[in-house]
Amino acid sequence: MEKQWLAPRMADLGTNAIREILKVVNQPGMISLAGGIPAPESFPLDLIERLTHQALATYGAGALQYEATEGFGPLREALVPHLAAQGIAAAADHILIASGSQGVLDALGKVCIGRGDAVAVEAPTYLGALQAFSPYGPRYCSLATDDDGVIPEALEAQLCREPVKLVYLVPTFQNPTGRTLSLARRKRIAALIQRYDVLLIEDDPYSGLRYRGEPQPPIKCFAPDHVAYISTLSKLFAPGLRIGFVAAPRRLREALVKVKQGVDLHTSTLGQALAAIYLDGGHLEKHLPRILNLYRPRQRALLDALERHFPAGFNWSRPEGGMFVWSEGPEGLDMERVYHRAVQHGTAFVPGKFFYTEPSQGLGTMRLNFTMADPHSLERAVAILGEVIRAEMVAV
Amino acid sequence: MEKQWLAPRMADLGTNAIREILKVVNQPGMISLAGGIPAPESFPLDLIERLTHQALATYGAGALQYEATEGFGPLREALVPHLAAQGIAAAADHILIASGSQGVLDALGKVCIGRGDAVAVEAPTYLGALQAFSPYGPRYCSLATDDDGVIPEALEAQLCREPVKLVYLVPTFQNPTGRTLSLARRKRIAALIQRYDVLLIEDDPYSGLRYRGEPQPPIKCFAPDHVAYISTLSKLFAPGLRIGFVAAPRRLREALVKVKQGVDLHTSTLGQALAAIYLDGGHLEKHLPRILNLYRPRQRALLDALERHFPAGFNWSRPEGGMFVWSEGPEGLDMERVYHRAVQHGTAFVPGKFFYTEPSQGLGTMRLNFTMADPHSLERAVAILGEVIRAEMVAV
Repeated sequence: MEKQWLAPRMADLGTNAIREILKVVNQPGMISLAGGIPAPESFPLDLIERLTHQALATYGAGALQYEATEGFGPLREALVPHLAAQGIAAAADHILIASGSQGVLDALGKVCIGRGDAVAVEAPTYLGALQAFSPYGPRYCSLATDDDGVIPEALEAQLCREPVKLVYLVPTFQNPTGRTLSLARRKRIAALIQRYDVLLIEDDPYSGLRYRGEPQPPIKCFAPDHVAYISTLSKLFAPGLRIGFVAAPRRLREALVKVKQGVDLHTSTLGQALAAIYLDGGHLEKHLPRILNLYRPRQRALLDALERHFPAGFNWSRPEGGMFVWSEGPEGLDMERVYHRAVQHGTAFVPGKFFYTEPSQGLGTMRLNFTMADPHSLERAVAILGEVIRAEMVAV
Repeated sequence: MEKQWLAPRMADLGTNAIREILKVVNQPGMISLAGGIPAPESFPLDLIERLTHQALATYGAGALQYEATEGFGPLREALVPHLAAQGIAAAADHILIASGSQGVLDALGKVCIGRGDAVAVEAPTYLGALQAFSPYGPRYCSLATDDDGVIPEALEAQLCREPVKLVYLVPTFQNPTGRTLSLARRKRIAALIQRYDVLLIEDDPYSGLRYRGEPQPPIKCFAPDHVAYISTLSKLFAPGLRIGFVAAPRRLREALVKVKQGVDLHTSTLGQALAAIYLDGGHLEKHLPRILNLYRPRQRALLDALERHFPAGFNWSRPEGGMFVWSEGPEGLDMERVYHRAVQHGTAFVPGKFFYTEPSQGLGTMRLNFTMADPHSLERAVAILGEVIRAEMVAV
């Protein structure tokens, strides 16, 4: 292929460093805490044939036909009470179905981001959002965070400093940190985005995976006209179906529909029909406890193992849900070095620095996923990590 | 929503005029030749449950899990002989699965088109391609066509005149005209794109719908390293599954994968698993004659009715397959006026001018779809159109 075939934006995308270093994690025998994917045993595999039968009986050939870009009507209707249960008042007409959360992020990037626009993200932030936004040429402004999530004063300082095109946050059980934004901060951030009249993308894929504690209301509850609220069925049904959705202010949703039509016409009708019946038929309520009972002991095992095996000087998040724990080691320790040694000992994780938009941040951090390994393997993996880290600390 | 939330590119997209005027076609009692969608009775509805059962039995939870952006391995493998049967030698590693042809068009636009780049398209051309490309800011150069498709000399003149970023053609049973590019022209165009080292997007959704005559080899056969060959299972299986694919030169495919990862991570795994079994299990071979036997008499009925009811001075295409017939009336007749009168009489079509990138072209043209109406309705619709046109000709 000739270089001149590529548009200039391709140069911005660079190589996917994380994809490169993670290539080794699928080696046989590796215990991987590096992934970010649901356990296959969390899927309602036994339900799929029944849902398919019902979808075809209910919608006939309509389940296989082209569909409106906005999304399959019965799924949008089924999402209304699903969202209401989280405190979000959205009519079916405010909802757009997309091909995963990723599809919403791409459409929002295309609709909103012009070259050079300031986009404010948490430090660290979700990599998939950066992959969706980057082709549209944003300039990222990274917002400081602590154990309670993004620091509102950091957002306010940024909004004072210059016009910001959009703010992107994962307020609940964040990827990569597992942190949840406190209620007081949610209200404060809602006030800020309204005062500065800026769009907030509230990405909420994990809040359904709560193992203990009380749910927090989405920021959208406090600033409905300034928030595009994104969620997905990837963690509550099956990621391979690629069903994401957004509840957005009406005119923004219209722009998203226009853009999505050029991207994929619409999301799989059959997948949407299965999802509609999964929600409408009460299957999610029945299945969710199975998912939570699978992940709760895994998270417990990871947190307990960290207490046992990680040396002094390490801190880690203790999320009430989600898929990740975030660990931060003492200054001077380079977790990419630890990663390469750990892999030699059969254990993988993601060095946290890859989740920062600014270089040289988060060198001592690591993202640990607990959904894909059983408690015994998690204990063993963390024991290995503890040993590798101790050896590395001596070397430093 | 505030205007300042939108990126400048949104202003380029404008309103979707065709979507506006077609809003009326779903009125009850309307015979619509306006659509571009397969008949629901062409779907292998009775197969879906069996395919689902087999997909789950064969791939287990893998059919519901996240998948590589490149596409589900078994589907890419199944597409190798499918493409070989059309003369295209593509290994599984050269194939990318996307969310419909539309998903490929969007990814190609993002990978290749920079603001202001010249993109050469047929006059008239497929609207979905324009919708995919336009957000990336191309400048369209329209290529003259005749009954044998695009005129190679028009392409050569364009390539001489200025650097062209890519050429987009639908060589077989084109949308909107139904025309097929002759073999001699295919070879001539292959030579041109190689000589000028320009990328050709060969979009081929319809060639499987051949009712008579001999297949033409894809242009990709004659210039494999300069053609991204796109096709889809939307017309041969079910459009609602959104399974498209592209066979592209290796480095271009790598760039497409990188971009698609940010757009939707990957196409529905379950949909891909169903498609793999549909192809691999020989179901397409068995089902295709049912589709052809459904559409062949519909096309016949439309062509016969045109002979009977359209006034002198009209010409239309007589395609050997596909979904459309293209009609051209005498100069001075405005088919948008005819459209509005026809709708009042219960019949819809698409005025052809909407398929041109340059204003004031194709005023007297119309696109007639025959897949969605039975032969009797087609006869009635064309009789009405004939009457409306005669009345309009008198008025002019």
